[in-house]
Amino acid sequence: MSPSNQSILQPELKLQEDLAAFKKNVDNMFLITMGIFVFCLQGGFAFYESSCVRPKNVINVLFRNYVDSSISVIFYFLTGYALTFGGGENGFCGTRYFALVGLPEDKMAHCFFQYTFAATATSIVKGIVHERCTTTAFLCYTCLISGFTYPVSSYWALSENGWLKVLGFEDFAGSGSIHAYAGAASLAAAYMTGPRHDRFEKDGKMNNIPFHSVPQAFLGSFFFVLGMLAFNTGSNGSITNPGDGIVIAKVAINTIVCVLASSMTAIVFQRFVFERSCWNFEVGLNGSFIGMITICAGCNQYQNWTALIVGFLSYFVYLIAQKIIIFAKIDDPVGGLGVQMGGGFFGLVFAALFKDDGVFLQPSMSSANTLLINTVGGITIMIWGSGTITLLYVVLRYFDLHRISLSEEQNGLDELVHKQQAYCFEDVLEHRSVYSSMIVRPAKRSHSMDGINRRTR
Amino acid sequence: MSPSNQSILQPELKLQEDLAAFKKNVDNMFLITMGIFVFCLQGGFAFYESSCVRPKNVINVLFRNYVDSSISVIFYFLTGYALTFGGGENGFCGTRYFALVGLPEDKMAHCFFQYTFAATATSIVKGIVHERCTTTAFLCYTCLISGFTYPVSSYWALSENGWLKVLGFEDFAGSGSIHAYAGAASLAAAYMTGPRHDRFEKDGKMNNIPFHSVPQAFLGSFFFVLGMLAFNTGSNGSITNPGDGIVIAKVAINTIVCVLASSMTAIVFQRFVFERSCWNFEVGLNGSFIGMITICAGCNQYQNWTALIVGFLSYFVYLIAQKIIIFAKIDDPVGGLGVQMGGGFFGLVFAALFKDDGVFLQPSMSSANTLLINTVGGITIMIWGSGTITLLYVVLRYFDLHRISLSEEQNGLDELVHKQQAYCFEDVLEHRSVYSSMIVRPAKRSHSMDGINRRTR
Amino acid sequence: MSPSNQSILQPELKLQEDLAAFKKNVDNMFLITMGIFVFCLQGGFAFYESSCVRPKNVINVLFRNYVDSSISVIFYFLTGYALTFGGGENGFCGTRYFALVGLPEDKMAHCFFQYTFAATATSIVKGIVHERCTTTAFLCYTCLISGFTYPVSSYWALSENGWLKVLGFEDFAGSGSIHAYAGAASLAAAYMTGPRHDRFEKDGKMNNIPFHSVPQAFLGSFFFVLGMLAFNTGSNGSITNPGDGIVIAKVAINTIVCVLASSMTAIVFQRFVFERSCWNFEVGLNGSFIGMITICAGCNQYQNWTALIVGFLSYFVYLIAQKIIIFAKIDDPVGGLGVQMGGGFFGLVFAALFKDDGVFLQPSMSSANTLLINTVGGITIMIWGSGTITLLYVVLRYFDLHRISLSEEQNGLDELVHKQQAYCFEDVLEHRSVYSSMIVRPAKRSHSMDGINRRTR
Repeated sequence: MSPSNQSILQPELKLQEDLAAFKKNVDNMFLITMGIFVFCLQGGFAFYESSCVRPKNVINVLFRNYVDSSISVIFYFLTGYALTFGGGENGFCGTRYFALVGLPEDKMAHCFFQYTFAATATSIVKGIVHERCTTTAFLCYTCLISGFTYPVSSYWALSENGWLKVLGFEDFAGSGSIHAYAGAASLAAAYMTGPRHDRFEKDGKMNNIPFHSVPQAFLGSFFFVLGMLAFNTGSNGSITNPGDGIVIAKVAINTIVCVLASSMTAIVFQRFVFERSCWNFEVGLNGSFIGMITICAGCNQYQNWTALIVGFLSYFVYLIAQKIIIFAKIDDPVGGLGVQMGGGFFGLVFAALFKDDGVFLQPSMSSANTLLINTVGGITIMIWGSGTITLLYVVLRYFDLHRISLSEEQNGLDELVHKQQAYCFEDVLEHRSVYSSMIVRPAKRSHSMDGINRRTR
Repeated sequence: MSPSNQSILQPELKLQEDLAAFKKNVDNMFLITMGIFVFCLQGGFAFYESSCVRPKNVINVLFRNYVDSSISVIFYFLTGYALTFGGGENGFCGTRYFALVGLPEDKMAHCFFQYTFAATATSIVKGIVHERCTTTAFLCYTCLISGFTYPVSSYWALSENGWLKVLGFEDFAGSGSIHAYAGAASLAAAYMTGPRHDRFEKDGKMNNIPFHSVPQAFLGSFFFVLGMLAFNTGSNGSITNPGDGIVIAKVAINTIVCVLASSMTAIVFQRFVFERSCWNFEVGLNGSFIGMITICAGCNQYQNWTALIVGFLSYFVYLIAQKIIIFAKIDDPVGGLGVQMGGGFFGLVFAALFKDDGVFLQPSMSSANTLLINTVGGITIMIWGSGTITLLYVVLRYFDLHRISLSEEQNGLDELVHKQQAYCFEDVLEHRSVYSSMIVRPAKRSHSMDGINRRTR
Repeated sequence: MSPSNQSILQPELKLQEDLAAFKKNVDNMFLITMGIFVFCLQGGFAFYESSCVRPKNVINVLFRNYVDSSISVIFYFLTGYALTFGGGENGFCGTRYFALVGLPEDKMAHCFFQYTFAATATSIVKGIVHERCTTTAFLCYTCLISGFTYPVSSYWALSENGWLKVLGFEDFAGSGSIHAYAGAASLAAAYMTGPRHDRFEKDGKMNNIPFHSVPQAFLGSFFFVLGMLAFNTGSNGSITNPGDGIVIAKVAINTIVCVLASSMTAIVFQRFVFERSCWNFEVGLNGSFIGMITICAGCNQYQNWTALIVGFLSYFVYLIAQKIIIFAKIDDPVGGLGVQMGGGFFGLVFAALFKDDGVFLQPSMSSANTLLINTVGGITIMIWGSGTITLLYVVLRYFDLHRISLSEEQNGLDELVHKQQAYCFEDVLEHRSVYSSMIVRPAKRSHSMDGINRRTR
């Protein structure tokens, strides 16, 4: 090549390098932005769960949400990330990057993003054992999950050498490795802990414990939607490879379509089939939650209309799971068991069934194989999840550390453990008389305050 | 060209392609990120509206917010997107992409982003008829708006062949096509439904119904600000064309300047002119809302100081609109009518007046023409919005499906329709005695618990 | 050069230009996206502060949050941005861009992003004087801070000619220029205003005033985390220079690690050392706040494990600061003084100590110099912050405008200044009897409505 040509080539090469560096930056920006959004899920858990319990346990719920996202930072960075993404030649777990030592700088954004996922997996279990689980038990399973069991099963599903991945397991945004896993772990924890003392009557009837604040439940759900949109979108992991932009758009649309289909099915069936003349808001919210989870595994591979079908079917998964849970007298204060375990597992199954080259649209040996692997993988992950937690609880029960006492349950954990109460509105009542003479109020209201309120003044 | 030169060109071409693909990805990332932020508006509506009603209707308000963002997914994707952006040779509506069939993959991000706008337009109407509208009526207008009437008028304003666009209509972020449209539709719905039974006294005086929870109202407003910043910024539609970065920065600054100017004007006027010695928070919030809306139409074309003027004038639009609404005895529980209709329409007018080459700064035939078209366009869209809803309500009224009964209104919809109550704080009261002996409280407080609270039980 | 070669070069040049323009756009997108996230801090202040006061002052707190983010828009754009980033040959303050006149278009995104920081600095002071500060005093210091004193000290620390910057001051995300500054200003304001009438007993014992709503406090804290992640990340200012992606990832991880370390230390020490058998949630939250602030100054330069150490030490800074504040009988309703001033100042010190080439890891003249400059700079900024506010308060006290009257304090500001109350839950109480017969409740609860409540205790 002539020298003159070389001088022409050089800027070309520089441009190429420049572009490559730029792309890395943008990928990192994508992961960090989406990671911050995924963090909204932590707010979602905090507000949804705390709305599901009695006011006497609200601080405890918030406290645990806050502590477990902290603990999962420690344990995920100490061992979790290493076990999941630390290379490794074996099929069981990764072997590098413990305590993030030796982590290449350009993997840090990935590490941050994955932490937000681990925090999600860790957060799920505690919800199912609220109002009766001891702080000790809570701390134990939180460390175990974020530092060991969740990362290991994630390795199986996500790492190139993970044994499930090698077999052809397909799980785009963690239906199996996060939700089915955490759902199964929750089931074990709930079973080993037993129900709250006032959940089931002697005749076996379940007492419904309503939200203590519906707006708070809605706030939680709202953060779930924000978080899950970013969770699924960000699962693509990059934005600079050709076609990435299209994948994230597809994922966003499929997610929103599936959530809608699932929640609308829930509301309509509840209204017209199960509880005549009542639009049940709680069931609707749960419907949307299971839709968010079921879509995860294949959200990058569905058509819009198959996402709709997945959403529609999700509700029935929820319905049946819920029936089984109530029949088995398992107490789930936040309604998360059926949503996570059912949604997570069937997310895997639906992905193999309904994706573009799945059993339903393109029946073939290959698609049947994916269905098989996804089913087997899901079950294995669930066994792993519930088995390890059961082992932990066997130990905890042996030392009687798994459950608070009856009187503690009756008095609530806020009083006992946090020496505080969640709400302190006396001033409102105290000053009523002052206020009521000053503020214009609807006329009707002022008479209708008869028995109860008049006494307040 | 010699072969050697070709070999030099090829990598150059590859780079160009590479860059083009990269840009598409980044545009999609921009739209998806902003779309998720715009979704915050849904939270805004839910929390603001639910704070405006009595506690007996809170669940119903949240439920409707939740259902309408779901329904708008179905109908927008089925027909809405097609009617707005489905090409089309005619001036009235688009004709392709029904049920998203045939939608090119690289339009999916645009489709997701536009859905978040449609959900906004759909959400507005229900706020104005809260506490008295039937579920049937709610479902009917939600389907109608998201699936037909909003998309059609958007086509006029946004599509290249839309008749308003052809005439020179300018509406950057939907002052007209979203807010004026939805405001007019709300007016029709509110007029046809009539006021709540306890809104106006027999002598015509309006009863003020205060927020039942001011922090909740603030939360809603806060989500509005987050959402509207993204709403206006994202309206640019791309981030990769030269100058896009500057436009979005300008839009963000103009939005925040206009919101501030409008809300400060509101607060100051209310304090010093209308209600001596009271800093009215509600009016301040409404002031900021109308600022957000008025700025939409021209936020990419204002100078900072013209954005300030627009904000200042916005408050007076609100003031006059509010007076007319109260005079006409139209009941608007959330105060959204004046904000949306007034703000939306005058947003169009102000854009034509105050933009850089507008009537005010560069009077010319062209700028006068924009003013004329924007005015006429705004009025047409409002007639379309209110006319179609009026037609719907004529049918609903004929079958007496438009309004709940008086006793239902008095008892509240939560009890009747959702069989639940929004707040359930008994435990707090129940345990007071236990708590009060344990928790350190300000001295004053602890005596004051005596008489008053014991009586409450 | 031959003509044929030129024709080859031209597309190359065009590509280069194209790429440069694209990069500018992406930088702007980064700043705007992060700016919107940083705005979450405004929500954080509003909800956290309002949860810390009695219900009788909630509206006032929300109102001031709302007003000060508005006022800071005006004053920051009028003079603040100019004083900080308006070039300038001198060491004291910038001299161009007043009222944003002459601001180059490509600096607008920077200007928007910096506004969100100024709004943060402005927001901090008011929290410390809640429940007793007059509206007049509030308005005065808000204008002063956002329009003059904060921008000036920011210039020292951030502008190329700023005297501290010239000496080698290092403050990546504003530990000193924002937090130490605002903390010192708050201290002056709190000292000059005096404590609330019921904060300290006659014998000097401090009355603890608990959160009136813990979920609201949690919501505030949650917004703080979202906001601070973006605050630190966005402080990098660009995303297109080589290595930017790595810096933002490092910053995100260091931030989350430091927050966790600090809050866990707080919770554990409180539980096992200071308050046996109580997991104190409030202290935990404060622990996380100080972690967020201490990490700011050096978050781009720490290793993960040094970030952990910084977090660990932060708690002790908080502990000691808190003791001093209580000993000095300074009343701080939101617990922000120690967090901001202690965290801000020691953030500067820790950055010089623990960064990669800091005193601790690479002792040298250069690192000792940074330590010296950071210490001196921090102290100077704090003197500037507290001095200017003290001067203002001397004037305010002269005219007796600094503090509300005792009776106003007892009755609360909502009633007096806003003629409204924050919560209005009567309907809940009113309809209890109706509800209780209709809604399925846990059996215990449903008899327990009248007499039987008593048994539950």
